[in-house]
Amino acid sequence: MLLYRLGSESRYAIRQRDEWRWLESDPWHDAVESWRLGSEVAEPERRPLAPVRPSKIIGIGRNYVEHAAELGNAMPTEPLIFLKAPSSIIGPGEAIVLPPESERVELEGEIGLVIGRRLRRGSRAESEAAILGVTAANDVTARDLQRSDKTFARGKSFDTFCPLGPAILVRPDLGELRVETRLDQKRVQEGHVDEMAWDPVTLVEYVSRHMTLEPGDLLLTGTPAGVTPLHAGQTVEVEVSGLDVLRNQVVSWSA
Amino acid sequence: MLLYRLGSESRYAIRQRDEWRWLESDPWHDAVESWRLGSEVAEPERRPLAPVRPSKIIGIGRNYVEHAAELGNAMPTEPLIFLKAPSSIIGPGEAIVLPPESERVELEGEIGLVIGRRLRRGSRAESEAAILGVTAANDVTARDLQRSDKTFARGKSFDTFCPLGPAILVRPDLGELRVETRLDQKRVQEGHVDEMAWDPVTLVEYVSRHMTLEPGDLLLTGTPAGVTPLHAGQTVEVEVSGLDVLRNQVVSWSA
Repeated sequence: MLLYRLGSESRYAIRQRDEWRWLESDPWHDAVESWRLGSEVAEPERRPLAPVRPSKIIGIGRNYVEHAAELGNAMPTEPLIFLKAPSSIIGPGEAIVLPPESERVELEGEIGLVIGRRLRRGSRAESEAAILGVTAANDVTARDLQRSDKTFARGKSFDTFCPLGPAILVRPDLGELRVETRLDQKRVQEGHVDEMAWDPVTLVEYVSRHMTLEPGDLLLTGTPAGVTPLHAGQTVEVEVSGLDVLRNQVVSWSA
Repeated sequence: MLLYRLGSESRYAIRQRDEWRWLESDPWHDAVESWRLGSEVAEPERRPLAPVRPSKIIGIGRNYVEHAAELGNAMPTEPLIFLKAPSSIIGPGEAIVLPPESERVELEGEIGLVIGRRLRRGSRAESEAAILGVTAANDVTARDLQRSDKTFARGKSFDTFCPLGPAILVRPDLGELRVETRLDQKRVQEGHVDEMAWDPVTLVEYVSRHMTLEPGDLLLTGTPAGVTPLHAGQTVEVEVSGLDVLRNQVVSWSA
């Protein structure tokens, strides 16, 4: 089951196979089992927006061993948390803008976990239950500023640096997720949850010990090896198993 | 003029000297000059909440030369930006909870800038106009985790680590702001905007080049020298000129 945020009124809709229905329940409040579906979504209204508007975005610095190695970093003994400004979010089809402040902007395809209910110091079972679903994310990063700033905040928070979508795959098998990133149709990254140092439920449990997670919050699970610089005119695709492709074009900055 | 967020319905009110009036305008949308005041706020309703619920909190790592020195850090050549999770916010009178994950939690009294209108790559004049006012903030920090993590995110984002309030001083003289922090009534920090490496307008202008600022966003301007560990039972007070005291008790964590 796919959960979309659609159109100019940003209403939620459900897609099951080729059937699109408006969602009459509040996905951030009502339990999935109780969701009520309404009328059919007319075809012109099936234009997906970024599927969440989180109160915070939590990223994980190094969760794939090969990616840590390619940046010359040791694996940390605990997950390395960082925050990314929610103002960086864009939806499918929107442009990633290269800011004049950076000379090296790179893609980072990731599996994004969407939190469905408030979680504070959750047990493993509570943490698993708090994951509403997954989405595809691109944790675009100004690598030069990330290196110079150590806090990561500036290098990861430029406007347009967080493409998300096109939907949320609700309650997937968390042990069977893959992510693949393509640049101009050429595969540059691929990863599977099996290769993560910390699996999705462990990450949610860990983060919830350090801050309360709110419905709609987004946890980026880290990027596999293969981060690649972006140039104007290119197209990036991030595909997470069970979801359609998240596709965004890269454009240069203009005042 | 002081802008408060009050009571269980979190409505905004204005206080001018001892007169309290409900605000009938939307402070995050309507220009200050056009604000309409309503009926008097009854005395039992004058219970202030944290005055903002920002979409993001941006902190500045080292903005007072003496504080950088006390932590053994060189002054950066540009402001060092970090992000703090909005879930860490508490209001006046609420307790700062010491989490079991840290052995050294410290106070950081700060002048908080409250953004009143959306700002993207603002000029100096636009940046100044985007500052609705200031509030007192305590950027509570788990110093051990801040040192071990480099991104600052974990050490600064525990629940209750961002006491704010009690009000927003609207359109103050930005060149005449002081902050003073007291621990159990003993002064431990004092700072004046004159001592900042980057003044408030410069900080807003700088941050807005790196991410769009939204109405209600909070920019913490850095802490003066004198950061001090907190222990259960202590009371911290942060006072910014023109505002009442922000007072919070420290308690130990219990499951």
